[in-house]
Amino acid sequence: MTVSYEDVVRAAGRVGGHVLRTPVLEVAPGRFLKLEQLQHSGSFKVRGAFNRILSAGELPPGGVIAASGGNHGLAVAYAARALGVTAEIFVPEVTSPVKVAGLRALGARITQVGSIYSEAAEAAAKRAAETGALQVHAYDQPEVVAGQGTTGLELMAQTGGVDTIMVAVGGGGFAAGVAVGSGALGGPGPVSSGGSSSGGARSPRAEPGSGPKIVAVEPERIPTLHEALKAGEPVPVQVSGIAADALGATRLGDLAYDILSRAGARSVLVTDEAIVAARRTLWAEHRMVAEHAGATAYAALLSGVYTPAPGERVAIMVCGSNTDPATLAHGDG
Amino acid sequence: MTVSYEDVVRAAGRVGGHVLRTPVLEVAPGRFLKLEQLQHSGSFKVRGAFNRILSAGELPPGGVIAASGGNHGLAVAYAARALGVTAEIFVPEVTSPVKVAGLRALGARITQVGSIYSEAAEAAAKRAAETGALQVHAYDQPEVVAGQGTTGLELMAQTGGVDTIMVAVGGGGFAAGVAVGSGALGGPGPVSSGGSSSGGARSPRAEPGSGPKIVAVEPERIPTLHEALKAGEPVPVQVSGIAADALGATRLGDLAYDILSRAGARSVLVTDEAIVAARRTLWAEHRMVAEHAGATAYAALLSGVYTPAPGERVAIMVCGSNTDPATLAHGDG
Repeated sequence: MTVSYEDVVRAAGRVGGHVLRTPVLEVAPGRFLKLEQLQHSGSFKVRGAFNRILSAGELPPGGVIAASGGNHGLAVAYAARALGVTAEIFVPEVTSPVKVAGLRALGARITQVGSIYSEAAEAAAKRAAETGALQVHAYDQPEVVAGQGTTGLELMAQTGGVDTIMVAVGGGGFAAGVAVGSGALGGPGPVSSGGSSSGGARSPRAEPGSGPKIVAVEPERIPTLHEALKAGEPVPVQVSGIAADALGATRLGDLAYDILSRAGARSVLVTDEAIVAARRTLWAEHRMVAEHAGATAYAALLSGVYTPAPGERVAIMVCGSNTDPATLAHGDG
Repeated sequence: MTVSYEDVVRAAGRVGGHVLRTPVLEVAPGRFLKLEQLQHSGSFKVRGAFNRILSAGELPPGGVIAASGGNHGLAVAYAARALGVTAEIFVPEVTSPVKVAGLRALGARITQVGSIYSEAAEAAAKRAAETGALQVHAYDQPEVVAGQGTTGLELMAQTGGVDTIMVAVGGGGFAAGVAVGSGALGGPGPVSSGGSSSGGARSPRAEPGSGPKIVAVEPERIPTLHEALKAGEPVPVQVSGIAADALGATRLGDLAYDILSRAGARSVLVTDEAIVAARRTLWAEHRMVAEHAGATAYAALLSGVYTPAPGERVAIMVCGSNTDPATLAHGDG
């Protein structure tokens, strides 16, 4: 099971009337910010949510259900309201009040349970089994990954192509989708379907130079991809730090591992301090409001963890804005 | 004296390497927001500042001087720093602390004088006569208007054309520039030079249908264009209300009057309440931070003061973000 470029193209057709084609701003020569924080519901997550729900053929009569650190829940609630189905959202107790208020405003039924994402996810799965609602996973479903991937498809069209895409990783659905949609696994044309039917053989890795390089950025304190690449498979990690409310998956998704490892994604880590600084720069220099997770990819560029070569065209995904803007004004994070 | 389409094209060549090509977001079918609030220094004003300074041939050895309710001062200070010349900025005492702090951070020498813009402008003119510094007017200089007009030029290229442009008016430099740059006075090709050399005869008005319609939006409490169109010439107006720090010119510029009246600009007024609501919608729905002046054009659309026809393609200029984002979070305006 994986996600192909054609899956992303089909997803773009499904979600096109429902999500924004977010703009790209070239802030300096060869430095492109994709302003996905301006997306409906405040993050890219709505792309996957729409694609998952609309892929079901008919709208689910039992509604939809999701577990989420916040942004995914907001996205599912947004998509459900737009499509006229009910949404039940399970979130961990640590979820910020801004996000919970946003969920309620979208008309979702909310259950706060557990201290971390995985506990909320378990409770949601149990509830779905009882009600028959359509589960929308935060990252590890092909339709969700394909939906997020439409961001990569757009980016390449809007910029005329870039050499490198910097993207934050939590569960990895966004980074994986962007890798596929941007052509990092081979671009337009057939891509290996890989996975279980080939008897466990590893899917072929993309040819070097066949698409953009993916720089996958994680907070030091949530290294799901970093540890997975070391271990050769997704492994549980400890989750903490300033971006944990949105990037705090305790284990990389299997789809993300398959796709990002085949894409040869480069894994880099950033400190919480670098994330805070990048978020402040986005406001002070570019008048953009991002949450910490949304500024994480940019942090790797600004802090020098990733240094582009001369002439390298680099796109940075700014991917979430569900934050209290007052925290930008008063120096408290 | 007026500003031609070719003047705007030349301005675009001059300022291109210094200002951002701000993105356009289609928030709903046929509704385009031009995100000029993401511009360097937080507003469109930097376009006119660069064009004025770079039009002087050589960089002014005595530096530059400007009077401003804030955004223009920030823009001149930004441009001066980028070009390596000194900047003296005169601002009224009512200027917000956020803006004064921004000016200081850009290395400008600041003088706070007078209760309104015109008093600061007088003091700046006197000082310029003493020092020989290059004056950069906030709106009523051809190079400034042509620079602002590059926003209109970009908009038409980015959208493939719109029927209508909604734009805020204070002194009118931005609206006038956008009218010229968008082709509202006849588009690419020769445009009448009008003005004094023709012995007082009114310049020809643009042919209907030759370019986009300009909807010029003002706060009810700062109706500089509205009163000028009634009187047949710019007249002094009382200035008050929530957007006065940025739109608070006491008289429309002569250039703006000439251009906007020839363009057949439709003048509409919005309440302060509508401006506050539009600014909140920009944050809540679109995750954009705008100051009140920056949300004024959108207010006319959202409040129904201007209602587009079915199928009408409408662009709205979001033009300034020099504001404290904390005011978005806590309901205080």
